[in-house]
Amino acid sequence: MSTTTELTNWQSVHDEVLRRIHTREWKPGDQIPKEVELAEELGCARATVNRALRELAAEGFLDRRRKAGTRVATHPVRRARLDIPVIRLEIEGRGQKYTYGLLLSERRSPPPEICANLGVTSDSDMLHITSLHLADGKPYMFEERWVSVAATPEIVDADLSKISANEWLVLHAPYTKGDISFSAVLASENEAKILRTQKNEPLFLIERTTWEGEKGITSARLVFAPGYRMHTAL
Amino acid sequence: MSTTTELTNWQSVHDEVLRRIHTREWKPGDQIPKEVELAEELGCARATVNRALRELAAEGFLDRRRKAGTRVATHPVRRARLDIPVIRLEIEGRGQKYTYGLLLSERRSPPPEICANLGVTSDSDMLHITSLHLADGKPYMFEERWVSVAATPEIVDADLSKISANEWLVLHAPYTKGDISFSAVLASENEAKILRTQKNEPLFLIERTTWEGEKGITSARLVFAPGYRMHTAL
Repeated sequence: MSTTTELTNWQSVHDEVLRRIHTREWKPGDQIPKEVELAEELGCARATVNRALRELAAEGFLDRRRKAGTRVATHPVRRARLDIPVIRLEIEGRGQKYTYGLLLSERRSPPPEICANLGVTSDSDMLHITSLHLADGKPYMFEERWVSVAATPEIVDADLSKISANEWLVLHAPYTKGDISFSAVLASENEAKILRTQKNEPLFLIERTTWEGEKGITSARLVFAPGYRMHTAL
Repeated sequence: MSTTTELTNWQSVHDEVLRRIHTREWKPGDQIPKEVELAEELGCARATVNRALRELAAEGFLDRRRKAGTRVATHPVRRARLDIPVIRLEIEGRGQKYTYGLLLSERRSPPPEICANLGVTSDSDMLHITSLHLADGKPYMFEERWVSVAATPEIVDADLSKISANEWLVLHAPYTKGDISFSAVLASENEAKILRTQKNEPLFLIERTTWEGEKGITSARLVFAPGYRMHTAL
């Protein structure tokens, strides 16, 4: 074989294809060569090319269609990965000391919006928990959470003054699907008091709901102290 | 071979491993069997097991260490994928009509925070652009952006009253790395006026900076109208 380059691992094939896209040798919308052709040109296995192209498609640079072949994405949708650790590890990862205070834990039936979120009925047996997570002794995040006792009966025996519901659930009630949303809200009077800030401060809000199969496990509202920024690489 | 199940594709191996983690047959911190052993047990190729375990590691369920083997993650970091389309497609994807107004386009040297963001000097040739993106005629997002003319000289010939800098850059200046952050801010007087809202409304802010190699391309501040929610699956 007379190839100018020999790219034996998928990362180098990935980078070579990305280079061609970036230099517009391959333009948005262009069909790119077949995997076998690329494998021959680059002097590597077809499986190596396949792995590289899958990665580039996952990153949004290529559109792969079973029949129409692979094209350079015309409107690359960039994908960012968000890592969502338990809040204790997020705080410790910043080099700060984590503490945690349980504010309320009560068994009761859920309000309508929680029924809608989790797909449970209004007479469901739920645990309603509010707690404050602190970093170096300062309020970091105020959590209000509903947990289905039917879905995770063991939680009623957990000592939630010692381990946060967030961490307990991660360890004992893995979920199969969930959704998460991010928005900006004004601090309510209660939130302002708990987070030791002013009423009407802009706060970053994360809402999460998780299921195990079709069974709703938990729905949480996480309000962060002023100045919180969520950050990731593109 | 006497196997009870025959899992021939990686997705079913993935689901079987996840089932064992969820039922705590394999507990957090446990070392899981070797790939060859799993392949034999499940009646599939080792490559199939490898693909499934890589996926589960990417999803945060497994920790894979070259020497220490593969363990069930003790603190699973859940990873969410954020799709970041150009703003026109985000609005059209909601079934709304997209319009766009260029408010300002001027060539000037950048302020200190932009120099720091992009790693450019204060005498750099930059394009400073502000624009408003509308959905069904209502303000959706106010964009303030700095673009390095040295990194993307062609942008000075683009008609940014017809195509947004956001979309032009996606098509003409692909980037190799970037970062993105999300926070909550109060609307300034100017932002409130442009977004046709009240001063001191809580607004969702996205800040993005992108590079091609070590060359800073653009730094943008995107402020969304009240009520904006960013949403993704877990």
